[in-house]
Amino acid sequence: MKIIPGGVTAPAGFRAAGLHVGIRRNKLKKDMALLVSDVPAHVAGAFTQNMVQAAPVIYDRQLCQNVGMCQALVVNSGVANTCTGEQGIHDAEAMAAHVGKSLGIDPSTVAVASTGVIGMRLPMDVIQSGIDMLVPELSYSIDAGVDAAEAIKTTDIYKKEIAVTLEIKGQQVTIGGMCKGSGMINPNLGTVLSFITTDLNISSELLGKVLKADVVDTYNMVSVDGDMSTNDTVMIFANGMAGNEELLETDEDFPAFVEAIRYINRAFVRAIASDGEGATKMFQVDVSGMPDKDTARHLAKAIVASNLVKCAMYGADANWGRIVCAMGQSGVKFDPYRVDIEISSVAGHLEIVKHGVTTDYDEKEASHILSEKQIKLKAHMNMGDETATAWGCDLTYDYIKINADYRK
Amino acid sequence: MKIIPGGVTAPAGFRAAGLHVGIRRNKLKKDMALLVSDVPAHVAGAFTQNMVQAAPVIYDRQLCQNVGMCQALVVNSGVANTCTGEQGIHDAEAMAAHVGKSLGIDPSTVAVASTGVIGMRLPMDVIQSGIDMLVPELSYSIDAGVDAAEAIKTTDIYKKEIAVTLEIKGQQVTIGGMCKGSGMINPNLGTVLSFITTDLNISSELLGKVLKADVVDTYNMVSVDGDMSTNDTVMIFANGMAGNEELLETDEDFPAFVEAIRYINRAFVRAIASDGEGATKMFQVDVSGMPDKDTARHLAKAIVASNLVKCAMYGADANWGRIVCAMGQSGVKFDPYRVDIEISSVAGHLEIVKHGVTTDYDEKEASHILSEKQIKLKAHMNMGDETATAWGCDLTYDYIKINADYRK
Repeated sequence: MKIIPGGVTAPAGFRAAGLHVGIRRNKLKKDMALLVSDVPAHVAGAFTQNMVQAAPVIYDRQLCQNVGMCQALVVNSGVANTCTGEQGIHDAEAMAAHVGKSLGIDPSTVAVASTGVIGMRLPMDVIQSGIDMLVPELSYSIDAGVDAAEAIKTTDIYKKEIAVTLEIKGQQVTIGGMCKGSGMINPNLGTVLSFITTDLNISSELLGKVLKADVVDTYNMVSVDGDMSTNDTVMIFANGMAGNEELLETDEDFPAFVEAIRYINRAFVRAIASDGEGATKMFQVDVSGMPDKDTARHLAKAIVASNLVKCAMYGADANWGRIVCAMGQSGVKFDPYRVDIEISSVAGHLEIVKHGVTTDYDEKEASHILSEKQIKLKAHMNMGDETATAWGCDLTYDYIKINADYRK
Repeated sequence: MKIIPGGVTAPAGFRAAGLHVGIRRNKLKKDMALLVSDVPAHVAGAFTQNMVQAAPVIYDRQLCQNVGMCQALVVNSGVANTCTGEQGIHDAEAMAAHVGKSLGIDPSTVAVASTGVIGMRLPMDVIQSGIDMLVPELSYSIDAGVDAAEAIKTTDIYKKEIAVTLEIKGQQVTIGGMCKGSGMINPNLGTVLSFITTDLNISSELLGKVLKADVVDTYNMVSVDGDMSTNDTVMIFANGMAGNEELLETDEDFPAFVEAIRYINRAFVRAIASDGEGATKMFQVDVSGMPDKDTARHLAKAIVASNLVKCAMYGADANWGRIVCAMGQSGVKFDPYRVDIEISSVAGHLEIVKHGVTTDYDEKEASHILSEKQIKLKAHMNMGDETATAWGCDLTYDYIKINADYRK
């Protein structure tokens, strides 16, 4: 597998565009993206588990289940089209229909996504004129992928895109992706908005299986603020234009594809955590020594989701009692007096807890390690062999600022 | 029932003291409290459900279960005596033993409590000399109760105490209490430190039953930051000195006592939320129209625990999508399109959501209502007749400041 420049337009046959079309007041902020495959692509998706689901989530889930094919995706930021009732579903359908008509493709193969304020109706006139503006801008270029990645951002500071290439069944296959994160991020089987394209020839069933297996260890393991969005969506589009014979689960190349998807989603999850609202640093939590994978995941997630751990990270304070406290409230059973905790970064490495009590480490050295932009916390539970990793960011003044003034 | 001045020393036969004894560096901050009953009191407690439990929690739970009687309570702030292993238990026992010896009472009837930094050993020499300093200061006065309430604070700004009097079985009975809150507050069957005294004659079994029934609707319904402390403790001491014939569950006066305890605990919970770390305002969430009490509680708690709702409250922003989102991720099933939401404060009242969609209310009026210090959010689910109430505070810059620099 090789990392290459670009994002969603890197695989063969995918065009994209991103523009400011007027949904947001800030004219410098692109607010709408369009992604089109030359031929209908197999599609699979994973969606939010929040009881309250955005209209585009309800729409896309049906598309993945009933149609299984997708040729275009239209995304707007600024308005989430959530808590908008039947009208919201109609608006999502109308958005897809307008894309289908403009491109001359079957509207039932058009996916839609929205992110932004909950409770407001989509401005359908702006959406439709926006689609009309985007269609002539569609391009196979790397820059077009960048525009699309910019357009799906909300409070994200950095665009998030990636592309990799690998050989499958003798063919050069490319996978590209773009995603957004930032706030309301504590996904559970779904996330944020994340769109992955590939020219691989693979069935939508197998694509769905790969995605489902991957999200539990990637998107489900990141927490910015403990709030699970109503719009979390991950979709993979595979248009088969690499020309490989269809990839099957039994093929010897299959693990390489699974690994590439894992690589991309881990990269996105790390980017989402690093670019969490107000974040100044990203921390990775590795929990090891648990009897099963599920409890290991729960512990890791509990640590990255704790406000107090997040504040301690912001303050570069090795206040490990909060790490133990966060695990203790997770509902997972463990022996507090078997826990070992280590911290590390480019500035060094330190064991701060051994068998549940302090190692009498040097607080200054610990603070020095925690002052870096990227930090690792390791908790070894000494109860088994299973591990899990989660990602989070610190909780800062700017998170408050962003979210107290979100709609102003 | 009548509210009277004072706190834990209001009931007959309770003396208290609170001093700075040197556990904390700040000499202006009292850091140790002692509470003594003239005669052994019946005792009942409710404790944290965090897997990781502080040594004093383990010690007090055994005291409540095995002894059922308590004559003195010693509390320190600054060091939590948590994650301190066997040594921590020995230290808690030694703390109780020293109080027993100093007062000439059975050490098995001495309760202990600690709050502060996790992972540090208690400074036992300071603790013992502190007890020696406190004993001669013990007093029945109101001021002594104030000193004790001051001494158990950590990042609390305000002391929290209350006293009420009521007639039970023809006798004037008094109930007093003190508590602390502020951070790491999202209790589950237990809380913070809260100590209630009464001169009522009642068995420890019945006392425990009243307490257990009460905490689910009081302490368990408050959230400052979603983190459940390892030291949460509520204890009630009843020394019988009011001279009433023992109160039984079948007595007609029994509901009045239950109501008085509910009144005290609700007052404490509101005070804890108002004085949450960094809080500028307190908000109460009333969920109604649910088919059962438990799911109503879950929804109310999910709203007060959401960082995004807390930030919106700080910004006086009626961003109701976050309220619906928080309920949606609670795991409770409901129909988003039946939900009605109202906001109110002394500045006014406004219905902002009807059947899951916006009422097109005036945002300025909403912001005006949410700019007050005390706010009510009402969510009516239209699915049944059960209700629940929860309390929270806003999430502010100062919460971050306090918790990034907690140990500095």
